[in-house]
Parts: sequence; C-alpha cells; structure tokens
Amino acid sequence: MKKEVSIGLLGLGVVGSGVIKLIHDYQEQLNHQLGCSVRVKSILVRDLEKAQQINVNGAHITTDFHEILEDPDIDIIVEVMGGIDTAHTYITHVLQSKKSVITANKDLIALRGPELLRIAEENEVDLFYEASVGGGIPLLRSLSDGLVSDNIQKIMGIVNGTTNYILTKMDEDGTSYEDALKDAQQLGFAESDPTADVEGLDAAYKMVILARLAFLTNVDFDDVEVEGISSIDGTDLSYAKQLGYTMKLIGYAECVGEHVDVHVQPTLLAQTHPLASVKNEYNAVYVNGEAVGETMFYGPGAGSLPTATAVMSDVAAAIRNLRLGVSGHSSVSPRFEKADTPKDKQRSPFFIRIHAKDEVGAFASISQLFNKIDVSLERIIQKPKEKDIAEIVLITHTTSVATFEEVLKELKQLDVVTSIESHYRVEGDES
Amino acid sequence: MKKEVSIGLLGLGVVGSGVIKLIHDYQEQLNHQLGCSVRVKSILVRDLEKAQQINVNGAHITTDFHEILEDPDIDIIVEVMGGIDTAHTYITHVLQSKKSVITANKDLIALRGPELLRIAEENEVDLFYEASVGGGIPLLRSLSDGLVSDNIQKIMGIVNGTTNYILTKMDEDGTSYEDALKDAQQLGFAESDPTADVEGLDAAYKMVILARLAFLTNVDFDDVEVEGISSIDGTDLSYAKQLGYTMKLIGYAECVGEHVDVHVQPTLLAQTHPLASVKNEYNAVYVNGEAVGETMFYGPGAGSLPTATAVMSDVAAAIRNLRLGVSGHSSVSPRFEKADTPKDKQRSPFFIRIHAKDEVGAFASISQLFNKIDVSLERIIQKPKEKDIAEIVLITHTTSVATFEEVLKELKQLDVVTSIESHYRVEGDES
Repeated sequence: MKKEVSIGLLGLGVVGSGVIKLIHDYQEQLNHQLGCSVRVKSILVRDLEKAQQINVNGAHITTDFHEILEDPDIDIIVEVMGGIDTAHTYITHVLQSKKSVITANKDLIALRGPELLRIAEENEVDLFYEASVGGGIPLLRSLSDGLVSDNIQKIMGIVNGTTNYILTKMDEDGTSYEDALKDAQQLGFAESDPTADVEGLDAAYKMVILARLAFLTNVDFDDVEVEGISSIDGTDLSYAKQLGYTMKLIGYAECVGEHVDVHVQPTLLAQTHPLASVKNEYNAVYVNGEAVGETMFYGPGAGSLPTATAVMSDVAAAIRNLRLGVSGHSSVSPRFEKADTPKDKQRSPFFIRIHAKDEVGAFASISQLFNKIDVSLERIIQKPKEKDIAEIVLITHTTSVATFEEVLKELKQLDVVTSIESHYRVEGDES
Repeated sequence: MKKEVSIGLLGLGVVGSGVIKLIHDYQEQLNHQLGCSVRVKSILVRDLEKAQQINVNGAHITTDFHEILEDPDIDIIVEVMGGIDTAHTYITHVLQSKKSVITANKDLIALRGPELLRIAEENEVDLFYEASVGGGIPLLRSLSDGLVSDNIQKIMGIVNGTTNYILTKMDEDGTSYEDALKDAQQLGFAESDPTADVEGLDAAYKMVILARLAFLTNVDFDDVEVEGISSIDGTDLSYAKQLGYTMKLIGYAECVGEHVDVHVQPTLLAQTHPLASVKNEYNAVYVNGEAVGETMFYGPGAGSLPTATAVMSDVAAAIRNLRLGVSGHSSVSPRFEKADTPKDKQRSPFFIRIHAKDEVGAFASISQLFNKIDVSLERIIQKPKEKDIAEIVLITHTTSVATFEEVLKELKQLDVVTSIESHYRVEGDES
C-alpha cells in the first residue's frame, strides 16, 4: 500500500489555500487516522505570477491541466476553481482517467451532478462534494448515511451566509438593506457583485443538492422557485417581529409521496423555531424525518478553513476507499423520477400586507373576499398609514399556494385595495 | 453476494422495538440503498411470554444466547439490552465469532469501549455505537469523519434530555425541581428511579465517548467530575436569568495539548450561546474546532424511533463494509494517553451566591479577599435577604478552578460570611 497519497489541486483561491494549510498543519493527525501521509503535489492556476506569492508548501504550480491529469503519481483531484463548463470538462476527464474527485462546486453539482456521478460510478471512482453545501457543517454524509433508514420529509435551510447576515443586521439594528449589504461587503461576507447571493440563486443550488440526497430523487434546478431578499422592506421585518416571527431566507424542500417541492423564499419564521436563532453569517439546516423527528445541523456556511475542513473529510473518505480498494461504491441512484408538487398541494400560512382606502366597509370587503375563497385568518393588524390609506397586515391559516394566488388576484381587483405591498410564506408554527 | 442480511437482536425494549419497526417500514428504501434486503431473524429476550405480546414481524424469539451466536445465517448482532456484564460477555463472544456488532449501550462503551474495539479490530469486524450518544442525532460519525482534518478543541453538550426538560420547566414556568421531575416522569422523559439522569452519570458516560472520539485519546470514566441537578435552587435560576444566563447541565470536554478535561456540571450558559436555545427534552452538542470554528448538532436525544434510526445507520454502515469485504477498518487507535488537565489549567468565570452579615464593611472584606487572591469581579448583585443577612451574587472574570477553590476555602473562614449558598461555572460569553 502506498505510504503517501498525492493530491492534484485545481484552483488556488480561498478554499484551495485552506486545503493547503490544513494538509500542512494536520499532517500528523491525518497520518494517524488514514495510515498514510497526504501531500498536495501539483496545483493548477490561471495566473502563475499571482500564485507564486502564495505559500504552497513546495507544491508544483502549473497552468497546464494535462500535466496534472496525466501525472501517474497523483491519486486524487480536488476541484476548487469554480465555474461550470471548464470545471465540468476537467472533472469528466479526471473521472474517466480513473481518479477520484472532490469538489466544492455547488453550481456544477446542482446543474450537472447526476451526470458526473454516473461517470464516476462507471469508472469505479469516487465523486464527493461535502463542501458544496453548508461549508464546514458535516451535512451531506449525515443526510445520506446517518438517516439512511429514515424517510426524510422536509428540509428547511438557512444555507446562504450573506443573506442571513444582511437580514440579521436589518432585524436587530434596523439597518436598511443597502447599508447591511455594504456592511457585509466590507466584512467579506458578500461579493462585490452580490447577485447570486441576494437573489437566492446560491441557496437554490444548495437546496437542489440537499433535496436530491434527502429524497433520493432527481431535482432540476429549473424547477426551483427562487426569490431573493433585495426587495424586502424594513416595515415587514417590524411587523414580523411584532407578530412573533423573524424574517429569514429559507430554502425549503419537501417530499410528499413522489412529489417534490423545492423553493427559496424570504419567509416569516416563528421565533420559537430552532432556525430562528441562527444569526449573522451562520448557516443551519433543519431536517424533519418520519422516524428521527427534528434534527438540526449548525455551523459556518463559508470561509476558507471551514470549507477546507469539509473538502478534507471527503479527501479522507476517498483515501480510505482507495486503500481498501472499494472506490466508486458510495453513490446511490435515484429511487424515483421527480415530479413537482402541484400548487394546490403546497401548503403553508401566508403573511400579506395591503394598503387599502381608509373608508367604512373597506376591511369588511377584504375579509369577505378571504371568506369567499375559504381562507381563514389567524392574525390581523390594521392601522392608519397616511391620509386616506390604511395598512392592513394579515396572517392566514394554512392554505395552498394555488388558493393564496387566487386571493392575491382577487384582492388586486378589489376597489378598496390600493396596493399589495408584500406577501410571504410563514413557517415554523407548531400547528 | 448475499441477497439478504440477517440480524440477531439482543433485547426487545424501547430501542429494540424501534429497530424492528424501522426495518419493516423502510425495507424498500434500505434495499435500494444497500442493494440487499435486511431482516431481523432472531431476538434474545429474558421473558418469552412478555415478548410474545410484541409484534416482531415473524422473527424467532429465544431466551438462549447461544442459539443466536451459533446461527451461521446471522451476519450482524444488534445489542440493545443494556447493562454491563452480560452485555460485555455477549458482545465479546460475538466479535470473537467474527460477526460485527452494533450497540446503543453507552454505559458499556464508556466503561469498556476501548477493550471491545480492540477485540473487534483483532477479529476484523465492526463495532459501531452511534446510538449511544445523542439518540437520533448523527453525531459520532460527524466527529470522526466530518472533522477528520480538524483539531477539535472543545465540546459542550446538552446530552441528557431528562435534566434538560426539568431545567427548562424550572426556568420557564418557575416550577420546583420536585414538580418538574414528577412532570418528566409522567411524560416518560424520566425513569421511576431518575438517579442516573439527574445526578449526571448518564451525561458523563456520553461525554467520555465523545471526548475519546474527538480528541483521539483515552478518557476514563473515573476521571470525569460529575455534579447533578438535584440540588439546584430556583433562586439561582432567577439570578442567572437576571444576569443574562440560563442554567443547563453541560457536559464539557476540552483538550489542550495532551491534557484532557471532562466534566459534567450545572453551568450558567450565556443566553446568546447557540446551546441556550436547546429546550425541553432535546439534546445538542456544540463543537469547537480549530479550523471549522463553531458547529452544533441538534435533535432528539432519546426515544424509540430516533435511537433506532441511529442504530440503523450503523447497521447500514456494517452491511456496506460486509458487502465490500472491508469490515474492521473503521476504528482509530488513540493518538496519545490521556492526562487530566490540572486544576490550575481548567479555566472559566464562576458564579457564586453568598449569604453575609448585613453590616458595615461586610462587602468590603469579601471583595478584599477576591482582590488578595487576584480574582477580579465581572458582575455584582447585593441585596438584603432577611433580618441581618445580605445576599451577594458575584460573577468572576475567567480564573482557574484551583484559584476559585482557594477563594471558596477562604470565604468560608471569613467571619462576615454566614454561608456559601451555591457556585457554578459560567460558559458561553464571547470574551
């Protein structure tokens, strides 16, 4: 058996540097646990000059992918370069050359994971991606191995640290969205172009990956309904608080029978729910299993060393499989083809904030409308807003998305309603 | 490869019945994920008549252990009978007959785990015990595999549901300890003899198991300092709340260099700490790793189906190893022999409640004493208690246990101090 395992690293950004540091700092410990030493032999970079300024502990730096692909010494490839097309091509080549791949690339796994997993299986090598969701939280293996005999029914996740940081600041300090975003950018929690985070795409990629593993089914990214946080109004946060809720960007995945519903939306979460206490840049995933009940996994969702820790847990698993000669047996094919949950089966309570004419009978005609469509109301706040306009905030009892959309449509046609200011799903009440 | 794996079950209590139910209800799913079916073939019970009243889905029931041990059909043994000596004997025999063992027996693993793991390794079979800590929370594998490249520095756990339920009731409803215990017994969260739970022994067993895995070292149960919750006074809970803390029975394990400190004590936990929101019968384990930072695992710490879920995750892992022919390669020997952390290296802030004579200069001589021993004070509350007696509550800055014990000793000798009512460690402040 080889006394040393050599790794080829594709990419030398934040996560790549973390991997180099961990392999260096915890060499003795890895050696003890794996029975062999681990080294980064070669690193693929785009910019040689820039790379030479980084301490890579003597690893060879190259801009030529084939130098790494064709090096017979290299046992495992770690892909931390990001992006879709090039990463896809590289990973495909590596798997076909019978080497295991570890990736932190959530976009790629969300969009083309099933295809790549099939290629890995055909070539009897491993493709692991623990770092793609929840940074340092050991999450994917907990779902696939820890809850193997359970029927996971629902996952709710705070899986994007940027938006959680922004919402925490808005909620706790009354900061505006714009200021909270600037703050996040200064602290390094948000990119200079924050679109993928604040518009919910990053969270949606992660929920696709979680839903596939939890429900053992195919989930397409295109089927995920996504709404970001950029248009959230401080007014809604303060009503939410007043009503016992906190606003979170919740990634939601539910499986009922063979129907799967995955969506990412700003959601009013009951303050008593375990996820409500997840603040700032932290991530957490709450899992509801038929047998296990409620479990939650909490931790840093990003960052160099936390994410590198997840990469290294995959590297360790791949090395163990390599040494035992059992690579390529970890992935499980889908149990059934996914079918989207129709809107009349997606159910939750809803929050809605309406501006209406402040005149006699206005509220009566609104509540009549809810009554007609058979949606009952749980909580009502009405107060004068400005001259002639009243602000009405309602929380409905649980109803279907289809029915709620009907409510919205009819409200817009109501003469006394001047505008629908906002509406959100509500989660986490015990009912 | 065998199309069916047969399990022998030792014990048919709460967890055993859960295992039977899960194997029955999720047969199709297990089959999909493992590539073979799973059945419980035989069950060892003490009382045949009682067992016949339980639905065991056609499994054979016996009172003869050797019938199960010597059945060549049986591949894996699941031990859920509890107790130490008999379970130890049975498990040893099973391992020596080259069959893998899954156990939920925390007492046994805490007291004799290292010896049994050695026997398993010698016989090239698996010994897994995920269900021994944290019920349904996938915890042990997360520690050993998920954080493999990290240096875990500290674990704080709420690992006993009974005491957490009692403390939650006392804290939220002002219930007395006695009433909260009765309540827990009625709800099935506490046994009729609650000693092992309320005196902290159950939590101590679990912390020994966690510390061994996290720090890769030997930890002896006898070295764990244990204090239960039975003498906690409601007065302390209310001072705690007033000062921004909540009282929890915290299992604490810290590794500094090659020194390990494991203790279980009622502790004042900052209300802002993630563990502070863990309420009622729930469990959670908070892990502090050098690279990953803070992670937390939350879920049901007990119960038939949650605990059976953990057992089944081990069964699945053992079956995978069996089918791949790689059983007996999972355990990692200790990296170093443990050495207890000396008391002058165990550090935390402390809470102390004192009764003193309500006279001029009393507080001055107490604060002089702290000053003399070089312990500075973070928070002070003083109020008249009853005729001639003042109640003084202090929170110190971080100091060592050795120094704090010196404070206690000298306080007792102080003429103005009439009694030391209580003292606790304080955890979770960010400093």
